[in-house]
Amino acid sequence: MNLLSKPYSLIRKELDEVEVCLRKVSETTFPLLSGIESSLISAGGKRLRPALFLLAARMAKKDDFADIVPLAASLELIHVASLIHDDVIDNSLLRRGKETANAKYGNHVAVLAGDYLFASAFGLISDKDYPRIVGGKIVEIVKLLAVGEIQQDSSLYKITTDEEAYYCQIEKKTAAFMAVCCEIGALVEGIGTDIANKLYNYGHNLGMAFQITDDLLDVTSNDETLGKPAGRDIKQGVITLPVIYALKYSLKKERLAAIISNPLMSEEELQEAVMIVRECEGIARSKKKVQEYVNKAKAFIPEECSENLRESFDFLADYILKRNY
Amino acid sequence: MNLLSKPYSLIRKELDEVEVCLRKVSETTFPLLSGIESSLISAGGKRLRPALFLLAARMAKKDDFADIVPLAASLELIHVASLIHDDVIDNSLLRRGKETANAKYGNHVAVLAGDYLFASAFGLISDKDYPRIVGGKIVEIVKLLAVGEIQQDSSLYKITTDEEAYYCQIEKKTAAFMAVCCEIGALVEGIGTDIANKLYNYGHNLGMAFQITDDLLDVTSNDETLGKPAGRDIKQGVITLPVIYALKYSLKKERLAAIISNPLMSEEELQEAVMIVRECEGIARSKKKVQEYVNKAKAFIPEECSENLRESFDFLADYILKRNY
Repeated sequence: MNLLSKPYSLIRKELDEVEVCLRKVSETTFPLLSGIESSLISAGGKRLRPALFLLAARMAKKDDFADIVPLAASLELIHVASLIHDDVIDNSLLRRGKETANAKYGNHVAVLAGDYLFASAFGLISDKDYPRIVGGKIVEIVKLLAVGEIQQDSSLYKITTDEEAYYCQIEKKTAAFMAVCCEIGALVEGIGTDIANKLYNYGHNLGMAFQITDDLLDVTSNDETLGKPAGRDIKQGVITLPVIYALKYSLKKERLAAIISNPLMSEEELQEAVMIVRECEGIARSKKKVQEYVNKAKAFIPEECSENLRESFDFLADYILKRNY
Repeated sequence: MNLLSKPYSLIRKELDEVEVCLRKVSETTFPLLSGIESSLISAGGKRLRPALFLLAARMAKKDDFADIVPLAASLELIHVASLIHDDVIDNSLLRRGKETANAKYGNHVAVLAGDYLFASAFGLISDKDYPRIVGGKIVEIVKLLAVGEIQQDSSLYKITTDEEAYYCQIEKKTAAFMAVCCEIGALVEGIGTDIANKLYNYGHNLGMAFQITDDLLDVTSNDETLGKPAGRDIKQGVITLPVIYALKYSLKKERLAAIISNPLMSEEELQEAVMIVRECEGIARSKKKVQEYVNKAKAFIPEECSENLRESFDFLADYILKRNY
């Protein structure tokens, strides 16, 4: 979390309150669920979505943001719930270095725990008098996450996936959520749509950069740093940007295509594919894309920001460039 | 649906509008999801939850109930979403005589389609200016459904499950939802808590009777009438009331216990178990329980009802006694 201490300094107090709120949800009165949730909610997430939301809300000239903490927490709950369901769907056994809910308790419990957390998220929202538009935006995000996953599912192992299709996928999967976190941060505080739109675009570009980095780490990092097996995307048939570039620029592109289009690839073939992707210029090209999106994000930081706030948005964008987990 | 035409006559117009609303959700703009949802939402459900809600709302002295139709539809969406996830969890292949979502599209798509429908339900609620307490009640129901399923999951094949534990399970699984449908029907129209409480109790007792009937049908009916394989509960290890009674009163209770506590029971053993349950007095005892709950439900119909409305609540309770699917 060290890299995040600078961008998060302005909202430290509220983020701590978000943790309290999340702990309360995880310490549910139903003992059968509590074991599950606490391990997931406390699994050391970056809390990026609540942070984006809270920073955006800082555009408002006021001192106390305690009233929007439940909304910030609900965004993290939705994120966690969708991760739990994704892990069921992808049959993933590890996340952030820990056993996933499905690995530990079975798919049954994981599906239901996700449902429970989605409901808890909507509970936190419906509990307070937030502007109605906020609830609608969050609903749209949950829908989009589902649609994104279904579309990704239908293009697994398809080496014809091109750059455009990839951007379209990560938009739904990651960028739209981060964009909306920023947007509703402004909207909940009654900030005008002009600034809300800029913040939306900041979040969108940050999210695109974030997901490409995630996809880069899948091929460049090792199991230990990642907290999950490296090369997992390739194994699962998810065609990411570095792979798309490798399929275009690598001298071994035919061999790569043969391996990654086969759902039954062996462990040796997977390692060979990872090496092919690592060795070609696709990595550098992907990194350039990350930089481009980070630059775009920065260009959308509203001029109306206080100096402190501008710095925080700026640091957060830089964090994407530095993160390695 | 013939048995329901009498109890539904008062709310026919609103129920038709609910269908329009559900069709709109199913004809989503995302072509990848639409195939899935339409087949599920149009699978000829009884729409019992919207009906209970709409009947309860009729306690209000007004002519036009169009404004609460989206809320009625959201209750059905939550029901459908939880059925989809239940089918994934139970690995069920048939429901209402049709292939389940997981059978047709795989668990992946089914989990996500359920999420999408849950979100759509909350979308319909957050779209309108319903009293805040309504959203909170619905959130609690979604949580309870998940907890109920998890608890049921943990007691599968456990022949020590007693009557009390069974009632506790079906309360969470079915009765609480129907109770809340009635309750929020009153609350959304600003009817006092006194009447809302009576309606809650009506729905609760109706729900208990409904679920016991469901569990009876699982052993007394055949595949064709049920639209799913008979004896499925026993096969899946769910210990229902007729089975609990058979374990107590049947002369072949030891044999029954030996079969149903074994997750690997053969098809012949399953049929033998079904016959043991059918032949003993457990069926008659369970039917008596249904009658008791139906009587209790009727006793909670508020005196303040118009004659027409009282008749509808009455007919609906009688329907539970007559239903055979």
